[in-house]
Amino acid sequence: MPKIDLDAIPLNNSTGYPAPHDRAVQGRWKRGLASVAGISDFGVNHVTLKPGAWSSQRHWHEGEDEFVVMIAGEATLIDDKGRTPLVAGDCVAFPKGEANGHHIANEGQGDCTFIAIGRQPQSPCHYSDIDLMFDWQRQGYFHKDGTPF
Amino acid sequence: MPKIDLDAIPLNNSTGYPAPHDRAVQGRWKRGLASVAGISDFGVNHVTLKPGAWSSQRHWHEGEDEFVVMIAGEATLIDDKGRTPLVAGDCVAFPKGEANGHHIANEGQGDCTFIAIGRQPQSPCHYSDIDLMFDWQRQGYFHKDGTPF
Repeated sequence: MPKIDLDAIPLNNSTGYPAPHDRAVQGRWKRGLASVAGISDFGVNHVTLKPGAWSSQRHWHEGEDEFVVMIAGEATLIDDKGRTPLVAGDCVAFPKGEANGHHIANEGQGDCTFIAIGRQPQSPCHYSDIDLMFDWQRQGYFHKDGTPF
Repeated sequence: MPKIDLDAIPLNNSTGYPAPHDRAVQGRWKRGLASVAGISDFGVNHVTLKPGAWSSQRHWHEGEDEFVVMIAGEATLIDDKGRTPLVAGDCVAFPKGEANGHHIANEGQGDCTFIAIGRQPQSPCHYSDIDLMFDWQRQGYFHKDGTPF
């Protein structure tokens, strides 16, 4: 069945972020759609942010493009250039290698939902505001000097 | 600027389909977002279907996954299994190699809009209802016996 039964897919708010960086995404409820739907050319996450939640810590990828389309509610895109309101239908792209740390924050009173397209990271991911790095070779999170949490 | 200025991107209703198969997509107005936004890991089309228009002739790809998320209006997904209504927020995936000819038709009175994610075809594409094939090696449309239109 090509139409995806979203309600049948469990929500999860898991994160690999070590404490205390995990707190900001505890209200980020995700459904991974690609594997459920049997596609693998790219990843697809259906993401609802509860009020106060962030899509991620502010970051950028050296080697993976990201694309987001808002489908419900309101949010704020925060990047090196400032703050941009987002509403349903808005589209945002984060080209690989562009050193512009970004995330999406729900600063409103209601939920917001978006679709995020990307690929499993196979390159360094840089975090703009905190002492965190994703080591893609070890597939885990470390301090910027490589030491574990 | 990560947020894409949709209004600044020209709409086009071009198609490679030969007549008479082009008629069904004349009311399909597309904006290609990936190249404008500087991303290349996957393709992104912002598509508005005018009343009566189809997303494509009914087809399936041997080697490319497709993903669609509705962002406004109403449409009908038509595939080998029947007809499925689509509204904003609905997500649809078409796995590569699944021989289930599909398209999205606007059978309503207003416009509908969706985002379609995929890759440039590098494999045969099969058309379910008409004498048409996409020859990816010649990057063009032909009759199913390989003869040109």
